[in-house]
Amino acid sequence: MQLPELVALALAEDLGPGDLTTKACVDPKLRGLGTIVAKQDLVVSGLPAVREVFAQVADRRGASASVKHHVAQGDRILRGTLLTEIEAPLAVLLEGERLALNLLMKLSGIATHTRAYVEAARAKVTVVDTRKTTPLLRALEKAAVRHGGAKNHRFALYDGVMIKDNHIAAVGSIQRAVERTRASVHHLVKIEVEVTSFDELDEALSAGADVVLLDNMSEEQLGLAVRRARAQRPEVLIEASGNMDPDRIASIRDLGLDMVSAGGLIHQARWVDLSMKLLALPERA
Amino acid sequence: MQLPELVALALAEDLGPGDLTTKACVDPKLRGLGTIVAKQDLVVSGLPAVREVFAQVADRRGASASVKHHVAQGDRILRGTLLTEIEAPLAVLLEGERLALNLLMKLSGIATHTRAYVEAARAKVTVVDTRKTTPLLRALEKAAVRHGGAKNHRFALYDGVMIKDNHIAAVGSIQRAVERTRASVHHLVKIEVEVTSFDELDEALSAGADVVLLDNMSEEQLGLAVRRARAQRPEVLIEASGNMDPDRIASIRDLGLDMVSAGGLIHQARWVDLSMKLLALPERA
Amino acid sequence: MQLPELVALALAEDLGPGDLTTKACVDPKLRGLGTIVAKQDLVVSGLPAVREVFAQVADRRGASASVKHHVAQGDRILRGTLLTEIEAPLAVLLEGERLALNLLMKLSGIATHTRAYVEAARAKVTVVDTRKTTPLLRALEKAAVRHGGAKNHRFALYDGVMIKDNHIAAVGSIQRAVERTRASVHHLVKIEVEVTSFDELDEALSAGADVVLLDNMSEEQLGLAVRRARAQRPEVLIEASGNMDPDRIASIRDLGLDMVSAGGLIHQARWVDLSMKLLALPERA
Amino acid sequence: MQLPELVALALAEDLGPGDLTTKACVDPKLRGLGTIVAKQDLVVSGLPAVREVFAQVADRRGASASVKHHVAQGDRILRGTLLTEIEAPLAVLLEGERLALNLLMKLSGIATHTRAYVEAARAKVTVVDTRKTTPLLRALEKAAVRHGGAKNHRFALYDGVMIKDNHIAAVGSIQRAVERTRASVHHLVKIEVEVTSFDELDEALSAGADVVLLDNMSEEQLGLAVRRARAQRPEVLIEASGNMDPDRIASIRDLGLDMVSAGGLIHQARWVDLSMKLLALPERA
Amino acid sequence: MQLPELVALALAEDLGPGDLTTKACVDPKLRGLGTIVAKQDLVVSGLPAVREVFAQVADRRGASASVKHHVAQGDRILRGTLLTEIEAPLAVLLEGERLALNLLMKLSGIATHTRAYVEAARAKVTVVDTRKTTPLLRALEKAAVRHGGAKNHRFALYDGVMIKDNHIAAVGSIQRAVERTRASVHHLVKIEVEVTSFDELDEALSAGADVVLLDNMSEEQLGLAVRRARAQRPEVLIEASGNMDPDRIASIRDLGLDMVSAGGLIHQARWVDLSMKLLALPERA
Amino acid sequence: MQLPELVALALAEDLGPGDLTTKACVDPKLRGLGTIVAKQDLVVSGLPAVREVFAQVADRRGASASVKHHVAQGDRILRGTLLTEIEAPLAVLLEGERLALNLLMKLSGIATHTRAYVEAARAKVTVVDTRKTTPLLRALEKAAVRHGGAKNHRFALYDGVMIKDNHIAAVGSIQRAVERTRASVHHLVKIEVEVTSFDELDEALSAGADVVLLDNMSEEQLGLAVRRARAQRPEVLIEASGNMDPDRIASIRDLGLDMVSAGGLIHQARWVDLSMKLLALPERA
Repeated sequence: MQLPELVALALAEDLGPGDLTTKACVDPKLRGLGTIVAKQDLVVSGLPAVREVFAQVADRRGASASVKHHVAQGDRILRGTLLTEIEAPLAVLLEGERLALNLLMKLSGIATHTRAYVEAARAKVTVVDTRKTTPLLRALEKAAVRHGGAKNHRFALYDGVMIKDNHIAAVGSIQRAVERTRASVHHLVKIEVEVTSFDELDEALSAGADVVLLDNMSEEQLGLAVRRARAQRPEVLIEASGNMDPDRIASIRDLGLDMVSAGGLIHQARWVDLSMKLLALPERA
Repeated sequence: MQLPELVALALAEDLGPGDLTTKACVDPKLRGLGTIVAKQDLVVSGLPAVREVFAQVADRRGASASVKHHVAQGDRILRGTLLTEIEAPLAVLLEGERLALNLLMKLSGIATHTRAYVEAARAKVTVVDTRKTTPLLRALEKAAVRHGGAKNHRFALYDGVMIKDNHIAAVGSIQRAVERTRASVHHLVKIEVEVTSFDELDEALSAGADVVLLDNMSEEQLGLAVRRARAQRPEVLIEASGNMDPDRIASIRDLGLDMVSAGGLIHQARWVDLSMKLLALPERA
Repeated sequence: MQLPELVALALAEDLGPGDLTTKACVDPKLRGLGTIVAKQDLVVSGLPAVREVFAQVADRRGASASVKHHVAQGDRILRGTLLTEIEAPLAVLLEGERLALNLLMKLSGIATHTRAYVEAARAKVTVVDTRKTTPLLRALEKAAVRHGGAKNHRFALYDGVMIKDNHIAAVGSIQRAVERTRASVHHLVKIEVEVTSFDELDEALSAGADVVLLDNMSEEQLGLAVRRARAQRPEVLIEASGNMDPDRIASIRDLGLDMVSAGGLIHQARWVDLSMKLLALPERA
Repeated sequence: MQLPELVALALAEDLGPGDLTTKACVDPKLRGLGTIVAKQDLVVSGLPAVREVFAQVADRRGASASVKHHVAQGDRILRGTLLTEIEAPLAVLLEGERLALNLLMKLSGIATHTRAYVEAARAKVTVVDTRKTTPLLRALEKAAVRHGGAKNHRFALYDGVMIKDNHIAAVGSIQRAVERTRASVHHLVKIEVEVTSFDELDEALSAGADVVLLDNMSEEQLGLAVRRARAQRPEVLIEASGNMDPDRIASIRDLGLDMVSAGGLIHQARWVDLSMKLLALPERA
Repeated sequence: MQLPELVALALAEDLGPGDLTTKACVDPKLRGLGTIVAKQDLVVSGLPAVREVFAQVADRRGASASVKHHVAQGDRILRGTLLTEIEAPLAVLLEGERLALNLLMKLSGIATHTRAYVEAARAKVTVVDTRKTTPLLRALEKAAVRHGGAKNHRFALYDGVMIKDNHIAAVGSIQRAVERTRASVHHLVKIEVEVTSFDELDEALSAGADVVLLDNMSEEQLGLAVRRARAQRPEVLIEASGNMDPDRIASIRDLGLDMVSAGGLIHQARWVDLSMKLLALPERA
Repeated sequence: MQLPELVALALAEDLGPGDLTTKACVDPKLRGLGTIVAKQDLVVSGLPAVREVFAQVADRRGASASVKHHVAQGDRILRGTLLTEIEAPLAVLLEGERLALNLLMKLSGIATHTRAYVEAARAKVTVVDTRKTTPLLRALEKAAVRHGGAKNHRFALYDGVMIKDNHIAAVGSIQRAVERTRASVHHLVKIEVEVTSFDELDEALSAGADVVLLDNMSEEQLGLAVRRARAQRPEVLIEASGNMDPDRIASIRDLGLDMVSAGGLIHQARWVDLSMKLLALPERA
């Protein structure tokens, strides 16, 4: 879903046929200024969504909104920093405020949370996300992960191959699973195989997997697996997964892995705290 | 957004033109059994979404899925409990697994998190949610709040009136804001006014507010405000908000408030841990 | 449905793949002036729809339309009054004419018809509408009711509670119906109970109904019911319904009712008569 | 718009996120029987819409509705006649009742109103409708016109040609308008020309119009125009329009016209009166 | 489907979540110039689609595209001719290039292919298309046929009547099929009957068919059929079909037919060859 | 676009508000049998679309269609072969016939045309398609290519990387383009670089391209390029493009290329000839 459609659906959810309170109390001609300020240290994500929200709310009223961001996506900012000013009819500010903040607080929460994982990795291993994302918000959440300094794994089931135990069981062996997949997908797609033992690792390597995913191995096993893989296929990419949090990443960052993947970047993140203040503006002459 | 539309859009996000791996490896005729098991103690929410996901994925393939839930929405269950069995083509299980779990883990996370707030309230005060919800998932998240034992505040801007400082500023006084609103909305809508001082409280009460929201008051102020309000308008409903978490709720639950509202029910909740195991089934004769 | 979507769907209905006659006969560069004139005395409603129609038709051709209204929503105007001038490509005027007039004639018909009910009430009782509206046009028709001087009842099933005989039968008593509803809805929703006898009235009042609807009572019964209700719960709102037309409203307006609701505001209204004249304009240098 | 889409949008309008009252009071497992009865003599139209409404409402709940019609589209029935029985969950009956009746009362109103025009014509002249229809309901309203015994004119701007004064002015003459149109449309489309004088009539006939529309002529003029046209082009179809109601139709039905067109079939029709009674059914063993 | 919707869906198909390569390599601020040049002689069709593609791609990026066409729809141009210049962000040119060319090459292919049929007819008989068109592209393909110099038959099943053998069999005779159709359709629709023998031709003529379609007759039969039809009903329109290609059209063009219809205008056309070159532009001061 | 949506939109195009002729002539209860027969030798593609068309048309009428295919996707069949029988209401057969055949003739045309390329390759080199496809039909056309024995290249801009001259120009060098792309895309995506000279080839190889595309090289150059590439990077995939037709493929198939890509598989294919015969069936007792 592109951002404009997402915002339109979300406004339908929150505004629906209209804001009863604002309609009753606020003269549509009154103009206002909204300021969004950080109430904690955080990493910024979600700015384009804020712009889209106020543009669409203004458009519903045949008006316009001027949104000025003072920070950029991925910026690390301190409590008290001014992120954004919005000048628009006061009614527009009131009707868009909640959705804009909901998106900004949630996405900046992910970017901020991700930063801790990335710092634990000290650039020794690449941190990547997974497909454990909030339904309908994946594109925004994966962008937030990038703003936090990590990288994205495949976006979805259609743009990358990950062969897991059930796929292997369904065809009989890792060898056959890789062969059948190579014959099925176009030639720009790499093939990743999830393994949980050294036997499976050996089979994946000899089957020609482009990437191996070491799932739920201990620190010691991970170290052995990396050496074993590099010995057989130096160019293979090696990823590890399984309850990855900053502590665990710190303990395995020097093992020679290419990547660790962590669903918790997104699903263990909480919203950061932001506030929006509104001021009425004098009428323009 | 109704559940079927949400699931359809979320499948478009994750499946898009199709699952490359499953298409390559899994014979469409193979049947399988999926079992979802709790990996921690939790409160259940999201079961209808699980059913809808597998129904839609099966329908895309002209197949059917049989989903049997062993628990009910709102059940408190222990680690190791079997929640759900799904019998369907193995390909359907593989394609729907991630989305089903993403919804179930997120929503049960909210229900589980909410339970702590409700227990802190010991039925002395009603815990309610706010409009701080994940865009597009509000209906599901508000249901999860109910499964956790709390109640819902208004759903959106269109089904309840909440007069805040900016509305008041726009018309000049609480008195005028209440009057104009009463004249604007239909006669089945109650009017809530947010106040931050005793003066505002008095004005809201004399203006005929049906509900007052005491925002960001200290414990001591809350106690005084409740007595003051009850003295003037015994039937008025009194709600409090501002950084409500279980500890704070425990400390104010005996003050005579009707409700406390807490955005954190939803935005401070993390996903719970669930796993889904897949088994191939023998062919049916 | 928001106005832009309604107009887009209605243009799809009437224009579809295009206007065969205009395409054949009218040079797209020719400009024209359209004037809409009242052919009877009427109350105006539907002006924003006229603007939207010509804006969208013009947009389909990459052109623009300038719409100038000389009257306002709710104005009572005499036969012969000029309502609106539209300057646009002649082809746009021809393609949008029918839809614009269909909406304006229908909605002004409702506003005009409503005015008679409101005048019969002489401000002694408030006239409100019902959910008997044309499917998909409810928002526009309810606005027309306001332009005619009446007020709106709840918009739909989701923004107000009305407990009727079948709801009561389903739970066993008025008392239980009110209790269960109070526990189910959020705290900003009032509860209205429909009653047809004094026993039911008494039960609704003691159950704590916020509003009672006296349905299909005689003038005499209505008078007694109002006194009975005020004696028990002075603050309760009292509404009456059942074949309400201007004559009946005149006969009961002094009984002390708060509201009378009348589906006939909308479903007994006929379109008013309006005409649109088109003139070609000289080319602009 | 096909019927399923119209009903879906109309349910979104009236049910939206759900019926607050039914959700609170009615056990989803309770079954009920609804009966729709005529409260006046009428001509039936709208039965498929009733079926579709209850089917969709039931489907939203994963239930089913059994709809049995005892009358057919176009039947003339007396007050007190049973039109339809619906067996479904009581909640489904309550949620679909209003929309089903709104459509049935409106469409039967048109069929009933049309019948009076058709009877006035005594089969001497064909009564047809116009494009003055309620936006988005045209297909249903045009069907109601047929159920009332009249016929349909073109559906929309895209399936028939009607050359009016502004088209003629835009190209310079009736002759050129007909020529250009003939060259533009495919060869299965007939061309109708609206005329208001004998000169225009002569020009339309010699230009080869397939149909002429005599607009706003007096009874005497109509008689002369028919003879004049038949003398020149015996096979030409002749239609008359302009404030056609049953009285006027009765006075001109013997003039030899082929058709009279009347917008009033639809826009002067009021809803007929119908009621729906609901009964709870005992549980099925 | 209107052009904007078609282009939006086609961009969803080709761009989906975004162009991986352009996103990685091209600075969004870089501007570029694209030039589309003919690599063979051809007849032009598809220019508005090119404009729409770049407008929408630019709009997705909040940018604009300036599209300047140097040729017009229907122009016959030589190899090497410059058709179009597009100035836009280089990223927009890269993302829209393929879709724009796909449409332009396909539609110009049809216009070019059609031209050969029209030339073979030497204006002695009108060449028309059929309903054998690419699903979803019918409006564009029928426009391309006009640009190639031919004319359109009916657009679809809803805007013209064509009675074929199965319709006739279903009612029993040509006579009854024409009668029932005349009673069913509105009076601006002509009736065409497909015949394959002289008996059927006679029956269609006496039943009052407005148009007869002589299907799969030999050249000799066609000549006899035309004379037979003209003798009975001079004003009837006569169309022939059945494997019409330029050679066959040349051999029957003098037989007195009004029209020949040929599906091959569209389904035997191949894409023409066009190329688009891109240049980076210096930054604007 | 999934098949059901494509068919729904295509039916809206061809059926729109309904088939005038069938509605007038065919009793909805009449049942019929349709048989689709090859009128030339061909390779089959498009069978699921046929099934979907008749299912949807039947569903619009509350009826069902039984579609039985006697051939499979990719089968090479002789003129005269029966492909498919459809049993359904005769009206359904008439309304769905054109769309079903349009899809089947077009897609089988591509499969048949592709077969010639594949045979010319004699399994010495893999034939793949391009993004030169009919807008909105890409998924179906790419399936037809597979049925013809060739393979698919990337589906769209979002599921594979192809670095071309303009991307290279935008960043300054092949080296930088590959580096920036590697940093931007997830790790399951391979990178292909288009080259037109040996210098570019060398640069692409040393930059680490996973695949190189040799564009518009002569047979001699291709041979040299393959040896040069294999010498430097034995594992690199090598693709060639530029006016690839069966003759050219035959002449270069032994050069050691991995793949040749040819837009002509799709854009130079013409529809094959198929016919559908309809028979009325006796009523079922």
